[in-house]
Amino acid sequence: MFYLGGVHAVRQMLVRYPRHVKMVWLMHQSQHAATFEASCREHSVKLAYCDKRQLDLWMPDVQHQGVAAVYEQLPSLGLEDLCTQAFQRTNQPLFLMLDHIQDPQNLGACLRSAAAFGVDGVIVPKDRAVGITPTVLKVAVGAAAIVPVVRVNNLARAMRQLKDLGCWFYGTAESASECLSSADVSVPLVWVMGNESKGLSKNVMDTCDALYAIETGAFSTLNISVSTGIVLHATATKRQSLSK
Amino acid sequence: MFYLGGVHAVRQMLVRYPRHVKMVWLMHQSQHAATFEASCREHSVKLAYCDKRQLDLWMPDVQHQGVAAVYEQLPSLGLEDLCTQAFQRTNQPLFLMLDHIQDPQNLGACLRSAAAFGVDGVIVPKDRAVGITPTVLKVAVGAAAIVPVVRVNNLARAMRQLKDLGCWFYGTAESASECLSSADVSVPLVWVMGNESKGLSKNVMDTCDALYAIETGAFSTLNISVSTGIVLHATATKRQSLSK
Repeated sequence: MFYLGGVHAVRQMLVRYPRHVKMVWLMHQSQHAATFEASCREHSVKLAYCDKRQLDLWMPDVQHQGVAAVYEQLPSLGLEDLCTQAFQRTNQPLFLMLDHIQDPQNLGACLRSAAAFGVDGVIVPKDRAVGITPTVLKVAVGAAAIVPVVRVNNLARAMRQLKDLGCWFYGTAESASECLSSADVSVPLVWVMGNESKGLSKNVMDTCDALYAIETGAFSTLNISVSTGIVLHATATKRQSLSK
Repeated sequence: MFYLGGVHAVRQMLVRYPRHVKMVWLMHQSQHAATFEASCREHSVKLAYCDKRQLDLWMPDVQHQGVAAVYEQLPSLGLEDLCTQAFQRTNQPLFLMLDHIQDPQNLGACLRSAAAFGVDGVIVPKDRAVGITPTVLKVAVGAAAIVPVVRVNNLARAMRQLKDLGCWFYGTAESASECLSSADVSVPLVWVMGNESKGLSKNVMDTCDALYAIETGAFSTLNISVSTGIVLHATATKRQSLSK
């Protein structure tokens, strides 16, 4: 059993994975009582009240805002299942692949952006990368419970597998000659982001279908979680304007 | 005297503030020798070689990539000087105001994005906010030496001062009815970003000329440094496409 804190995160968990939520705890006199009463009733999830102190105890260092969901971990998905399920929802799924991110703050912020921009799944390598640590979960403020994360043995092999299922891989690289705004995002798409110091590894870069640079000025280095947010935002808004 | 490490950062420092660079140290056998030899000659800055060990000693925990600039701190600017100098360079200056950011990682990443997207200055409050700490400088990988940061006593008063000089203030808020892509960025512009947990303070929000929401889905919470990157990127690319 796990605890998820925060108004946004619990609300999303109830909407997306109601069957995994065992119950919701709300602080006495919470200003969100009406919302969660309604949402829990709708999804047949048990709601109970407690003291703020109890929530602090269950979730130290989490900004729980007076609400917690007690949930079972999402079933661990394989790469092909993740992709197949996404294609059942949409013909333009959007994935994020993180090439050996080292810093838990960065991974957490990337998951948060992935949740915000409707990413269907995040693909990370099993080795030589930060895992889903408590710091990651905290920084992600609940996003880790909402976006499926798949850990694979070999990124380049995973890329070839998803290519066979119809996905396109766009990498980001400072040195790319094309810029982000020229990317055709109306395809089943995986954005591939390099790690903090080395960028994309050679193998991964060579397997990408195209490379794009974010339109910065001369000082072209951005934090990896900021780059990820920019790329996902640009993709989401472009898709939105295309669908109008 | 201060040490600034990193290829990008030192290159930018040489271009923007050559008179503040006392000298440049380069690691023996650096692959960037030719570039820095040329750049230092151009700006009449002394260049010398040393061991990597020496750079590690001067800048522990900094990814210096074999190069360091020894520099004098940028002169501390007042708010009006900052604005006047920016208007001398461009008729559409771009500023960033950070409303009581608490986390040094976030402030560092915001400065980095500000440098990347050509922001003319960052305005922060003197009190109840993180200052320019060593962590901030490290995360900013040199951006703090490139983007002027002005600390003011009162944000709302600073806003009124800059409005009198012709600046527009756009705040970001999840609850805003207009979205980022609809913002008219062809004016002298200050983006105002709220703090990690409370967003914009009431005073500051009320003084903004307009409020915009970033186009996220239902899970609408983004890390503050990610929001800042998205807003600055959207502004820079929109201005670029308008100028074509």
